[in-house]
Parts: sequence; structure tokens; C-alpha cells
Amino acid sequence: MFDVHLAQKAGQNLNTLRQKKPLVHNITNFVVMNYTANALLACGASPVMAHAPEEVEEMVSLASALVLNIGTLTPYWIDSMLKAGKKANELGIPIILDPVGSGATNLRTASAKKLIEELSITVVRGNASEVLSLARQDSMTKGVDSIHSVEEAAEAALILAKELNTTLAITGPVDLVTDGQHIHRVSNGHQLMGYVTGTGCTATVTIGAFLAVDSDPVQATSTALAYFGLAGETAAKNTQAPGSFQIALLDALYTIKTRQLEEGAKISSQ
Amino acid sequence: MFDVHLAQKAGQNLNTLRQKKPLVHNITNFVVMNYTANALLACGASPVMAHAPEEVEEMVSLASALVLNIGTLTPYWIDSMLKAGKKANELGIPIILDPVGSGATNLRTASAKKLIEELSITVVRGNASEVLSLARQDSMTKGVDSIHSVEEAAEAALILAKELNTTLAITGPVDLVTDGQHIHRVSNGHQLMGYVTGTGCTATVTIGAFLAVDSDPVQATSTALAYFGLAGETAAKNTQAPGSFQIALLDALYTIKTRQLEEGAKISSQ
Amino acid sequence: MFDVHLAQKAGQNLNTLRQKKPLVHNITNFVVMNYTANALLACGASPVMAHAPEEVEEMVSLASALVLNIGTLTPYWIDSMLKAGKKANELGIPIILDPVGSGATNLRTASAKKLIEELSITVVRGNASEVLSLARQDSMTKGVDSIHSVEEAAEAALILAKELNTTLAITGPVDLVTDGQHIHRVSNGHQLMGYVTGTGCTATVTIGAFLAVDSDPVQATSTALAYFGLAGETAAKNTQAPGSFQIALLDALYTIKTRQLEEGAKISSQ
Repeated sequence: MFDVHLAQKAGQNLNTLRQKKPLVHNITNFVVMNYTANALLACGASPVMAHAPEEVEEMVSLASALVLNIGTLTPYWIDSMLKAGKKANELGIPIILDPVGSGATNLRTASAKKLIEELSITVVRGNASEVLSLARQDSMTKGVDSIHSVEEAAEAALILAKELNTTLAITGPVDLVTDGQHIHRVSNGHQLMGYVTGTGCTATVTIGAFLAVDSDPVQATSTALAYFGLAGETAAKNTQAPGSFQIALLDALYTIKTRQLEEGAKISSQ
Repeated sequence: MFDVHLAQKAGQNLNTLRQKKPLVHNITNFVVMNYTANALLACGASPVMAHAPEEVEEMVSLASALVLNIGTLTPYWIDSMLKAGKKANELGIPIILDPVGSGATNLRTASAKKLIEELSITVVRGNASEVLSLARQDSMTKGVDSIHSVEEAAEAALILAKELNTTLAITGPVDLVTDGQHIHRVSNGHQLMGYVTGTGCTATVTIGAFLAVDSDPVQATSTALAYFGLAGETAAKNTQAPGSFQIALLDALYTIKTRQLEEGAKISSQ
Repeated sequence: MFDVHLAQKAGQNLNTLRQKKPLVHNITNFVVMNYTANALLACGASPVMAHAPEEVEEMVSLASALVLNIGTLTPYWIDSMLKAGKKANELGIPIILDPVGSGATNLRTASAKKLIEELSITVVRGNASEVLSLARQDSMTKGVDSIHSVEEAAEAALILAKELNTTLAITGPVDLVTDGQHIHRVSNGHQLMGYVTGTGCTATVTIGAFLAVDSDPVQATSTALAYFGLAGETAAKNTQAPGSFQIALLDALYTIKTRQLEEGAKISSQ
């Protein structure tokens, strides 16, 4: 059922991450900055948050991955993201975009689309409505609101990944990862994750950290999501409420052993 | 002694909140964004933080309540608050204002007053000195500094609520809620709440969530404060230090049962 | 081995801090605002975060110490820091600077140097590369990269403290504090502190709180670092993972008794 090779790869990526401690540069929203920095540290990565246009090019040059997250967005931040992103593209540093709230307001949707258009983005991670809002107006036969089943979302994501020439990760009860050719599905996770703010954003930084050590975007993404989901499952063994769950999740990111991830990763490929 | 009807109403509001999961739009300060988002999730509401003038009108149109909080204030944020607030007023969406630090600096006091003047604010929540700093210079017979007893503060609040045509909540060991006619007092709470940053701001977002499901401002406010205070009492049963208390408070917001709130709410009315 | 007088002074400072509850004004980065505010509360101090140029002079006038921290820096914030700092200097309020990331980008290095040049800074706290990056180009016989041993760093810090006319605290496994004449070393701490974001920034605010009650910069700094390090040691007794450690650290700041600090402080002087 689950892909043994990918589960092993998940363990290897985690191991490499903890050894190399890559610097991950984040231009992200105010709500999650502290939590995602702590999550990156718990994973084994080194986080840095920096958004001034005067320094983002220098900062990203020191990093092994760039995370762009458009929550609590203003146009000033988009300019910094473009500047950092162009430098990252020049240097071959992978970029992951989290289009928080795309589809909810014009500013968010237009900003996410602009980033995708002007940058070469390695991975985009969001929920179904955020990711599918990135489609060009004339390209989708159905609107986002008319997509009701997981299968319809998968089909739309496959087309959209090709159109945008990137890897898409639609996270939910089962995560879907596709570059338009390959499809990975990840079944790890726990419902309490929905009661902690920024768990989506934290999934994104975990992918950022894995992209720093695995050059295959689909594989880096699905193995990161398995690891993050397994941390959620582990955390839920010790607590049933969101405050202590949030803390136990950080603990689990730190304590999960390579072997446990190899055994617990629920990734399938087709 | 305590009002049984209001205690039951508290339980009903919490129940409705958890069923409806209303979107609460926050334009708030950097210090508490993460904690208040997590508190709203734990309550059963859906938080969104957005402050760009380009999107606040669209965002608030999707919401059932608007929280304005002037901590870590700059003039740019006040403009966004006014924009969001005017749209909220147009659409009949309740607004709660937290005048953090009003009275401490001219910027804070003037900004809070401007928001109250230009918007129709449903509820204002702060401590005594913040709330009473909102009075027009010539309207109060005594200055804030000369108010020494709870009774004097209650009297001043009653006059001020009428003058500002809003509901005021002055929180402290005993919370006072008044619209100039009715007075509710809430005795729930715990002293450790004073050792966690942003508990006042969190009380405010809880009121915001209750305003989304209860159209009576005094009742929504006092029932929310009873719920929040009871969560503090519950948290203090398991911990005596502020780090773990902060986490236990989030847990309690999530785990408190409707029945427990009906039995534990300490609201009196006159 | 360890200085008994300084250990007793640590206990006295903590005691005074908890009694006086001084207001500490912070102009700091987005990542740590919540955590450092909670740490200051747990220490017994009263934190306020305010950065608008329109209000920083008024706010700092109410405070007993000013913390400047250049993480997530933009030029707008530096202007506010200069304004607040000049007012603090006028009023004799101690300033502590945390040059987060100085040496990593030109913006950070130039901003930190500008603050030191235009203000009279009481204490600068950072890691070795941050602190040593503050040297004028022609003043150091060796570059930062060529400093490999703790002894070389100590020698460089001694010269630099004289040059900058301030007290320097270089934190690491053993913390070094010097004003160019006196040297204190602090051996408290725990390796898990490196897995929580902003522990350096939190050490800084602890020093800020101690500066509010102890006018001797070297002594205030080393006693604060002993207290903060002991809190880390205490936290590590109950947990081995960074999420729960972060919370246990706040708890320990609150629960450590004066007597425990007097017995546990590991400060040596030369």
C-alpha cells in the first residue's frame, strides 16, 4: 500500500537535515514567525527571518532554501519577496511559496500569482482553495467552488502543476503532491493540527528544510509532509487539547527518530 | 447572588460558537497575534489576521466580528482600522476595540479616540486606566488618577458608556460591563493571568467571538468574560507557573464543556 | 572558584526586580516579541513593546530600561531606536543593544554600528561573531574569522569594549562580560537553549531588567546571565525536548527562588 522506498527516503532526508543544519531564509507572516522558527530548529534546520529589501539578497545568498509566505501581507513585503526570490533563482536555491489566503482577497490572489509569474518557484503548498485559486482565469474548466471531491481536486492539481511548471502540495486529511506527472499522497497527520494556528505554514517550512537536502521536489515535499504528519500523530498520543498539542508537536519534530519515520511514513505514489 | 439566566446564556453562546465557527477578523498588535489566533481556534472560532489597507475591506466582509487592537501601533495601522471599521459598520458587523496603552502616550490616546469618533464601536475592553482615558477632557469631573475605588470606576464607566454610546468592559479582579444602563459584573479569573502577556487582548478576542453569535453587547461581553475567566481558573488547577499556565489556558478554552460554564460562570447583574 | 559575592548580588538583584517590577521598553524583532514579553513578566518586570516614532520618546520616559534588538530590521525601525535611545540617554535610562545578525548582512552591521556611534549604549549582548563584527575596520589586528579560541575572543572583547566605551556580553557555553577592565565569566546554561528561537534575545531582556535595578553594568549583566542560565538548567531537569523546554524555561524564571540563585549562580571574576 505505502511506498517503502519513499518511507526510507523520508528517514534519510531527516537524517541529512539534522547533520547539515541548513540555513532556511523565511519571509513570512507575523502570526507564525515564532512558531515556524521553533519548528525549523526542532527539525534540525537553522531559521532566519529577514524581510528588509536592503538585506534580503545578501541573506538568501547564505541560505539553502527560501520560504515565502503571504499571510499578513502588504505590498512592501511582496517587493522583498520578489527581490529575494530573484536572487534565489540566480543561485539555484529552491523556493517554496505558501499562498495563505489566496482566493480570499484580490491582494492575496494577485500577489501569489505575481510571485509565481516572476519567479521560478520549486513548490507551492496550500489548502485546496488556496492552491486552485492560482489557476489562470481561462484555464480551469470548473471554478474552485465547484470542486467537491478529493479526486476532482487531484485532477485539477495535475493540470495546474503543468500549467504553472511547479510542484503543488495540497494539504488536508490526505495530502496530495504533484508536479503534473508524478502524484504522491501522504496520509499522516491528526485533526488537532487544525486547532493550532500556522500548522499549514509549519508544514511549508518543513518542506523548505527538506528541499535544502533533497533536490527532487515531489519527493522532498511528500517525505517532509510524512514527517510533519507523523509528528502530529506522535503529539496527539500525549495530549487532547490544542495548547499542549502545539508544544508536543515541536517536541515530536525533535524527538522522532529516523527509524520511526521510516516505519511510520504513509506515502503512496502513482 | 450570581445570575442563573446569564450563566445559562454563557453556555448557550459557547455552544453556538463551537457550532458556527464564525470568522473573526483581527487587526491587532505583533506581540499577541499568535496567541490570540490560537485562543480563537481553541474557542471554536476561525481567526484571520490581515492589516493591508488594500484588503481589509474585502476581508472584513467575510467576517462575523472585527477586533481592533492598538498595541504596537503606527499611524499606518490606524488607517487600516478605520477602513475596515467603516466597512464593518456598513455591513452591520460588530466591532470590538482594545485601546492597549491608551492614556500612556498621546499617539495611543488620540488613536483610540479617533477610532471611537469615526466608527460605531460595539464594545471597548481595557483596564480601568485605558478605558477611562477615552473620556473627553471636559466630561469627567475627576481625572483617571483620582479614581481609587472600584465603585468610583463603575460610576465613571456608566457615564462614559453613555457619552461614547458604546458598551464598556473594564477588566480586573472583578470585570465591569456596562452600556450606561445595565451593569454586569464578572468574578471569574485567576491572578496568574497577569503573568501572561496579552491575556487582556485575549479576553478581547473572546468577546469578539461571542459578539459574532450574540447580538446583545452587554450579555455577549459578560458571558465571554465569564468563559475566559473560568478557563483561567481551570488552567490554574494544573499549574502554578506562567509558561505552563499560558498553555493550560488554551487547553481550557478548548476543553471546557457548556455544562461546566453554566455551573461556573460568576456573572451578576444590576 | 565562583565568586560568592556576585552570587549573592544575583539573588539581591532578582529580589529587587520582583519587588520593583520596573517597566522595560522594547523595540525588538517580530519573532521574539511574545516570548521576550512573557520572559520579562516571568522575571517580575513589566514589558512594553512600542516602536512608532510618534510615541517612543514618551514611552521610554516611563521606563527603567530600554532594549534595542535589530532582528527583522528595517530602516524605519532604526530611526525609532535612535529617537528612543537619545531620549533614554537624556534621562539616564540604561540601554541594552542586541545586534542580531550583525556581521551577516551590511544592513545589520551598519545599523548596529550606527546605534553604537550615535547613542551611549550601556551593554551590548550577542554571540561572538555578532559582537566582534562591531569593531572598526582598522582596529582589530585579526578578523572575526581568524578568532578560534575562547581566549582569543576574550582578548578581542577586552579591546573592543574599551574602544566602544561600553560593556560587552558574548554569550555561549561560557558567557564573557567585560567593560574593558573587569571580566566576568558565567558558566550557567544548557544546550537545549540553542533549540529555542530567541533565547539570545531573551538573555538580552533579562539583562535589561537587571540594569533597571543595578547600576553597575558588568555586575547587572553577569548576574542576569547567571539567573537566565540557571533557569535553563532548571527547565532541562523536567524535559528533554525544545517545545516543552521553552515553556519550562518561562516557568523557571518565575519559580526560581532568590536562595536557589545565590546557590546556583556560577560567576567568576578576574
